[in-house]
Amino acid sequence: MDVASLTPRLLLGPGPSPVSDRILRAMSRPTLGHLDPQFLAILDEVNEGLRELFGTRNRTTFPVSGTGSAGMEAALVNLLEPGDKAIVGVKGVFGTRLAEMSRRMGAEVITVEGEWGRPLDPDLLVATHREHPDARLLALVHAETSTGVRQPLDRVGAHLQESGTLFVVDAVTSLAGIPIEVDAVGIDVCYAGTQKCLGVPPGLAPITFSPRAVERVRSRTVPVASWYLDITLIAGYLGSERRYHHTAPINLVYALHEALREVREERLEARFRRHAEIGARLQAALAERGFRPYAGPENARLPQLTAVHLPHDRAEGPLRSALLEEHGIEVGGGLGPAQGKIWRIGLMGDGARQSSVDRLLGAIDNLLREEEAA
Amino acid sequence: MDVASLTPRLLLGPGPSPVSDRILRAMSRPTLGHLDPQFLAILDEVNEGLRELFGTRNRTTFPVSGTGSAGMEAALVNLLEPGDKAIVGVKGVFGTRLAEMSRRMGAEVITVEGEWGRPLDPDLLVATHREHPDARLLALVHAETSTGVRQPLDRVGAHLQESGTLFVVDAVTSLAGIPIEVDAVGIDVCYAGTQKCLGVPPGLAPITFSPRAVERVRSRTVPVASWYLDITLIAGYLGSERRYHHTAPINLVYALHEALREVREERLEARFRRHAEIGARLQAALAERGFRPYAGPENARLPQLTAVHLPHDRAEGPLRSALLEEHGIEVGGGLGPAQGKIWRIGLMGDGARQSSVDRLLGAIDNLLREEEAA
Repeated sequence: MDVASLTPRLLLGPGPSPVSDRILRAMSRPTLGHLDPQFLAILDEVNEGLRELFGTRNRTTFPVSGTGSAGMEAALVNLLEPGDKAIVGVKGVFGTRLAEMSRRMGAEVITVEGEWGRPLDPDLLVATHREHPDARLLALVHAETSTGVRQPLDRVGAHLQESGTLFVVDAVTSLAGIPIEVDAVGIDVCYAGTQKCLGVPPGLAPITFSPRAVERVRSRTVPVASWYLDITLIAGYLGSERRYHHTAPINLVYALHEALREVREERLEARFRRHAEIGARLQAALAERGFRPYAGPENARLPQLTAVHLPHDRAEGPLRSALLEEHGIEVGGGLGPAQGKIWRIGLMGDGARQSSVDRLLGAIDNLLREEEAA
Repeated sequence: MDVASLTPRLLLGPGPSPVSDRILRAMSRPTLGHLDPQFLAILDEVNEGLRELFGTRNRTTFPVSGTGSAGMEAALVNLLEPGDKAIVGVKGVFGTRLAEMSRRMGAEVITVEGEWGRPLDPDLLVATHREHPDARLLALVHAETSTGVRQPLDRVGAHLQESGTLFVVDAVTSLAGIPIEVDAVGIDVCYAGTQKCLGVPPGLAPITFSPRAVERVRSRTVPVASWYLDITLIAGYLGSERRYHHTAPINLVYALHEALREVREERLEARFRRHAEIGARLQAALAERGFRPYAGPENARLPQLTAVHLPHDRAEGPLRSALLEEHGIEVGGGLGPAQGKIWRIGLMGDGARQSSVDRLLGAIDNLLREEEAA
């Protein structure tokens, strides 16, 4: 097989999102060494651009050399020691994953569970923290990719800042699509992926650590169990010391660098507005066609990831396959309890365009008409 | 800054190595979804190609979504439980790293230390294993990137096959450059990087697990501490079940796929011969110029990575900088006890060409002449 013969798809699933030609071109520039001064200058600009996106002045801000889940693991493994308490909000796949990872690290996990498709009640989260004020961290998923729900963060952030508990936030599907204000909200560790609203191929996980999170890592009594994800070692390479740690994925860093230029040219506010408007248009058009939203209430629906039941609760698989095979459009199916029941439609990064909405709706209408005629 | 304005370099350091235009082009093909049947077919071919390179029929063979060090961590974290004994050969940076990672995982580490720049005595390794027959694993670096030494594996492999101890081998700098015969030697877990003799940008770590290594993972009493690197979960995605685990770095997988096609077209034997011949030519030419080999004895010198003292034991830094800045050629400096004392010159993948040797020698001669004239 030759990758040149692959049929391109319009990526409207939960990620990866479409990658612009400009980013693909940047990624294919000749590889430089990971200690080349030219590459280190690129990396410095990337880290600075990520600070802007995260809304933070945290020095310790960089792309982890792995996908979004590596970012999740980096957040937890640096903060947790065996026996630590971790409060984790669970209302979808990624909250479940946070809890699972924390348990593997030997933490005592207190879950705050909620219905899939609904945000967790901030009062309940705060009350749980009051029961466990000695928790090392409280972790929430901001944009739950498995359900399309936006989790409010402000109240929990304000509450935790007064405590010794660190606030960990998963922004994998948020970053560059909806506002995430790390410093203003009081988030201590925030991580993301590049293959969602940034429109960069998967393989990097932007992450940021607040000064008190860094202090926590410094005061650990046992070393970080993962050498690869030890942020003190990584910061030694990416920071001013430039001590060799591992070989960064050079060409993916080029791609991320180009994506950050795109964001700067568009301006972050305009990018958020684009995601909000395009997502709202899709959601309205789907409602007209009898698709029923899975996530709610309305103000908790993410614009960049729309989860919907199909009209008349029909099986989702056959239509989704036809969309891919006959129309070259990828949308996602459900996960966990929502498996087989919903579609997850991403309008992220370069995919958040009116043309994507038009092409998707055209294809859906076409397939539904064909069915009726059959 | 614009990545389009970066000055290309001839990468003759310890990695990354030069990436062919063909691979860069393949990498910049439009991104597909990680569950797209087209992408899964590419992944199947990649895994099959990696089996050929590793010389194995192991079903559990795939690229880990991280750089070479993630491969190292994946090997250890899946096999070791807290309290397990690990015997680690240490004679350079990467053996040191194996020991350090094992300790962080709670293993009791028995190091077999040797002089940097020399291989470890297989008799000593076997004798150490006889003292600790209950060791969970014995780990060796095949091609030590920090010293340019090739470690013999056969005797240790044959010995360990008769025991309950698993043989872990670091082939980061070996794979596709010098022969590594996983099944014939009796290696249980072998991992590599893509940015060395394969000539793919960094970001993936090919790995293979023997049936008895997989059995060991299945019979663990505590879960693998790393969720991201848990091979049972990864195999569920990459294997026949296709269960979502994480989002693979799609475009890097394209690049690896293309590199494996290059290898197949060239044929593996011819590729090994090319690396052997070009490396030998460089080593002879450097000797003529008064460079003294750091690694020895002669049959332990890697062809793809040459470590040398400079003529008259001169400082290595200024000449190396001049090589980069004036001639656009990257070579590596020393690490650890060899820091400031040696160069490490890689002739790997697409860099293992007579033209690389000619350009490097021309530049060195030029710089030395300029110095004399000054």
